[in-house]
Amino acid sequence: MFTIDTVQDIQDMARGAVFLGSGGGGDPYVGELFLRQQLAEGRHARIIDAAELADDAFVISIAGVGAPTVLIEHLVSKATLLRVLAHAEKFYGRKVDALISAEIGGANSMFPVALGAQTGLPVIDGDGMGRAFPHLEMTTFSVFGVKATPAFVMDDSGNTVTFDTINDRLAEDVVRAVTASLGSMAYGCFCPMTGAQVKRVAVLGTISQTIDIGRSIREGRDQCDDPFDGLLKCLNDPEHDRHARLLFHGKITDVVHETRDGWHWGKVVIGNTADASDQLTIEIQNEYLVARRNGRTVTVVPDLISVLDAETAEPMTAEMLIYGQRVRVIGYSAAPIMRRPECLEVFGPRLFGMDEDFVPVEQLVE
Amino acid sequence: MFTIDTVQDIQDMARGAVFLGSGGGGDPYVGELFLRQQLAEGRHARIIDAAELADDAFVISIAGVGAPTVLIEHLVSKATLLRVLAHAEKFYGRKVDALISAEIGGANSMFPVALGAQTGLPVIDGDGMGRAFPHLEMTTFSVFGVKATPAFVMDDSGNTVTFDTINDRLAEDVVRAVTASLGSMAYGCFCPMTGAQVKRVAVLGTISQTIDIGRSIREGRDQCDDPFDGLLKCLNDPEHDRHARLLFHGKITDVVHETRDGWHWGKVVIGNTADASDQLTIEIQNEYLVARRNGRTVTVVPDLISVLDAETAEPMTAEMLIYGQRVRVIGYSAAPIMRRPECLEVFGPRLFGMDEDFVPVEQLVE
Repeated sequence: MFTIDTVQDIQDMARGAVFLGSGGGGDPYVGELFLRQQLAEGRHARIIDAAELADDAFVISIAGVGAPTVLIEHLVSKATLLRVLAHAEKFYGRKVDALISAEIGGANSMFPVALGAQTGLPVIDGDGMGRAFPHLEMTTFSVFGVKATPAFVMDDSGNTVTFDTINDRLAEDVVRAVTASLGSMAYGCFCPMTGAQVKRVAVLGTISQTIDIGRSIREGRDQCDDPFDGLLKCLNDPEHDRHARLLFHGKITDVVHETRDGWHWGKVVIGNTADASDQLTIEIQNEYLVARRNGRTVTVVPDLISVLDAETAEPMTAEMLIYGQRVRVIGYSAAPIMRRPECLEVFGPRLFGMDEDFVPVEQLVE
Repeated sequence: MFTIDTVQDIQDMARGAVFLGSGGGGDPYVGELFLRQQLAEGRHARIIDAAELADDAFVISIAGVGAPTVLIEHLVSKATLLRVLAHAEKFYGRKVDALISAEIGGANSMFPVALGAQTGLPVIDGDGMGRAFPHLEMTTFSVFGVKATPAFVMDDSGNTVTFDTINDRLAEDVVRAVTASLGSMAYGCFCPMTGAQVKRVAVLGTISQTIDIGRSIREGRDQCDDPFDGLLKCLNDPEHDRHARLLFHGKITDVVHETRDGWHWGKVVIGNTADASDQLTIEIQNEYLVARRNGRTVTVVPDLISVLDAETAEPMTAEMLIYGQRVRVIGYSAAPIMRRPECLEVFGPRLFGMDEDFVPVEQLVE
């Protein structure tokens, strides 16, 4: 158990959440503001290990749903978060014992922590994606048997829509449609589960990880070191099968963004300033999906790709990328639970329309 | 009280429902098939006057929701209708005493009667539109204070979405979005109300009216009369402020259909075969909205427009119109309750984007 006690903790967490977003998930800035306000008012979020949970504890996921473009400009409402919790207890007919993030990458890292700070409910150190993904069914929760539904979404006006679908893929379609009809920003409450289930289906330790990543970047800068040294040291942990590789260092020479079918599609090309024939291409579908160096895959989903400012190691979401930026790109192995075959059937490369199988980053880049 | 006892009753009702659809509402054919099957199995729907209802009776509306193009090809499932009713009683926490149609025009005339036949629940002789309209908030129920929500939609697979919105306009957006995400065909349960409310907010007598209209057309044909004579006699009832006018007789010279923004838009031009300079134009937005003879409005929403085969008086939905057809067009006053100022603010001409005020058909045509 630990508490989030300083503005620095919150900033470290937000920066780490952008890193784990793998280009997507939205900017956690509005959540960061809300959390700082809570801290200023003396309310510290309490983060607990899944192991500390009673097996029969009742746990729910809270998330912002809708278009990231709206989400990142929409201030968090204290009243709405409380109303979501009250409705959850009525809807599920149980007192909520703890909260968990469905998606640690990007903005959705913040909402459970914000509600936890507000109410004193503990927040579990873990999530359902270990990164960001565009769909509700792309969680380890769903893969290992904890359905997203029965679930509901609620907006600031109090509009409430509940849904119970035959599978989570369809739940995703319903959420997307409903949220659009409500103005593209609502809160969702999903994946009701027990403490025993959390221990079995969650990607564990991911809130701590955001803080560790953010801290390693900050400390590297403060100490006038190359912040990438500390970051790579923080990420690499072969004993727990975590591997990070510096994939490329160069200048963005082309960026294409397109909004189509409700998704953000795009492509970024990064050129080696010392060798014009050497380039890295990253394909974007909300998140960075695949990085290819001169045509050869060097990291592919669900492994993470992060594009960072070449000097400061600031992680950047896909929409922040512009022509001429100097960047370094890191490939980072997904948590071991996410590389299991059952998971690759739900969020492996083929599920994003790619005609290739998953190969771990540590095999693709020695 | 009366029961629907013969195949002829059902066919009369379906034909009358198309007439009241004012070009929209979808073809009631699949509902008709279902009802005939019920009849063959000895189950007769029981239709009651609103006056027979206890003031504290609990009444709900059942409707098919989604794209008419899907609806009219989708057979009615006995199991789904029963599941909708069971879910309604659980969701509202009350036994349902009676059913009412939200929309008598077109396919939605049939579903409450079908469920009534199946279960023995009485169906109220009335509805919330007296015709067909494209939106959920365009009911006398909603105008006079019976909200559409809390409500739910359910499909044949058992996917269930409940919603409670701050107004019925938003409920319409949610239903439309959800239904599209479920494959464009689901059943909705809306407008929970008491018997006392039904008496105050419904357009009364509209099931009887569909049967009367259908019968008058059939009998006119059988007797080798001009079926329009009997039909106009059936419709005209100045004592109860109902007025029908034969607007035009001619040949369809142009039809434009367009599916845009989830609606069926269109325009039909009918030429006078004896005078090339004389023509009637009808604008379509799911339903026939306005008829103009040589530029001058002769009938406008919420008054009804019906385009019928010139010989047989078969009423035709907008999608059935084709070049070269000989047709007669009737303008028919909406029920008096629907012409009240509160109603015109929700489904008058301006709500459909027209820059004109409502004028009753009996004033527009001598």
